[in-house]
Amino acid sequence: MNLDWDDITHVTKIDPAKDLPRDIGVLSETDAIIVGGSDGVTAENTLAVIEQIGEAVPSIPILQEPYSSDHVSTDTIDAVDLLAIPAVYNGDREHFVGKHLDLFTEVGNKPEELFGTGLPVLGDLIASKGLDAVARMADKIVGEGYVIQNIESKAATVSGVETAYTTEQVAGAALATEAFYGFPIFYLEYSGTYGGPEEVEAAASHLDDATLVYGGGINSRRRAREILDAGADAIIVGDCFHEDPEQFRATVPS
Amino acid sequence: MNLDWDDITHVTKIDPAKDLPRDIGVLSETDAIIVGGSDGVTAENTLAVIEQIGEAVPSIPILQEPYSSDHVSTDTIDAVDLLAIPAVYNGDREHFVGKHLDLFTEVGNKPEELFGTGLPVLGDLIASKGLDAVARMADKIVGEGYVIQNIESKAATVSGVETAYTTEQVAGAALATEAFYGFPIFYLEYSGTYGGPEEVEAAASHLDDATLVYGGGINSRRRAREILDAGADAIIVGDCFHEDPEQFRATVPS
Repeated sequence: MNLDWDDITHVTKIDPAKDLPRDIGVLSETDAIIVGGSDGVTAENTLAVIEQIGEAVPSIPILQEPYSSDHVSTDTIDAVDLLAIPAVYNGDREHFVGKHLDLFTEVGNKPEELFGTGLPVLGDLIASKGLDAVARMADKIVGEGYVIQNIESKAATVSGVETAYTTEQVAGAALATEAFYGFPIFYLEYSGTYGGPEEVEAAASHLDDATLVYGGGINSRRRAREILDAGADAIIVGDCFHEDPEQFRATVPS
Repeated sequence: MNLDWDDITHVTKIDPAKDLPRDIGVLSETDAIIVGGSDGVTAENTLAVIEQIGEAVPSIPILQEPYSSDHVSTDTIDAVDLLAIPAVYNGDREHFVGKHLDLFTEVGNKPEELFGTGLPVLGDLIASKGLDAVARMADKIVGEGYVIQNIESKAATVSGVETAYTTEQVAGAALATEAFYGFPIFYLEYSGTYGGPEEVEAAASHLDDATLVYGGGINSRRRAREILDAGADAIIVGDCFHEDPEQFRATVPS
């Protein structure tokens, strides 16, 4: 599926290890949903959430953003529209390219005698149906050039991020995305803290084809507006979806 | 300049630290030229070679492939059609993304008060003319997803390559290029040794948009043919250009 990022301004990030709010119908106000998290996430709880959301709001695109191959199964891959895979610029080699190569080496080399077995393999990321399935899965993957700015976050620990980027480095990573790595998405992740507009502006000045998304601490109409006005193409709202439906509604641009 | 890689089958790699052969007119038989090397390469000797070739065969596209920022100046950038920058899959983080981020952070943050000074700065990779020049330089850059297979080579040492890839890993890196990193070029580099067709076939099975190039030990019509028949879009011929014009001519597909 080719998502049109021009139509997407508000994205909800749902953590499968956290409780869903009572009224998930509020999701009808968002443009896309990303399912992902760190602690306590499994392929099973991810699939359960995807299925529940898919039933509640069937017309909203759903992406899975796995931090680990444990989060993924052939069932989760089949259930989502896209697999958004972070490549963390300010992390270690493993989390920019190492694990990605492991994934693609597995995907690219599955022997064809597994054609048609259809067995989901926990932790194994491919649909075992030969080269066509390889191409299909590869089409479902969208790369995210990621900068993790909250170094206290679990995401930072997992990805080997030791320092946040300066505004100049954020601009450089954005330009690298636009000019060299070609990820469709450039993602500024502040994980529950509010980073403000300055780095969004710096990144936006170098991004054209790539979609600029910002996540972190968006819990009000004012913050949502500030980040979008600074040049973000889309805001990612996570915590207040789980914790405060009124706050969540306020973040949706009118 | 947008090079049409569909038209390119034979590429000559010229090392500015090595002597040029007496008759450089033989270059009229190649489709494109890459100027680059390791030991003894400087921005000055690179520029000298580019200018000499540009005079001898003005219609052949010339790319610079720098391994170090010492190889590049605003003059070499202006003189070539494209800057081909390797991102080495089987090297260290520095040579896949670290140095690239340094480059783009410099390029993306040059203060506008340097507008119009036009001073070439050795080791400094940007044309100091503001955001337009940033976009122009970024347009000139083409990324190469690189696999270095000769671990005795200088290229391997410089890039932190400790082991060659298996055929399966080559396939995985090719798929990662096609599906995730989006480099226009996937480059199998054997640096003076002959790797043969097996890994070329493995890579070719996963490449569609990206151009597959192979370099290493091509010194005969037979080897040129074997690599192209295995699925390479283009062969890179280096050593025999410097050492044996008859051998070089034989590598050009008829």
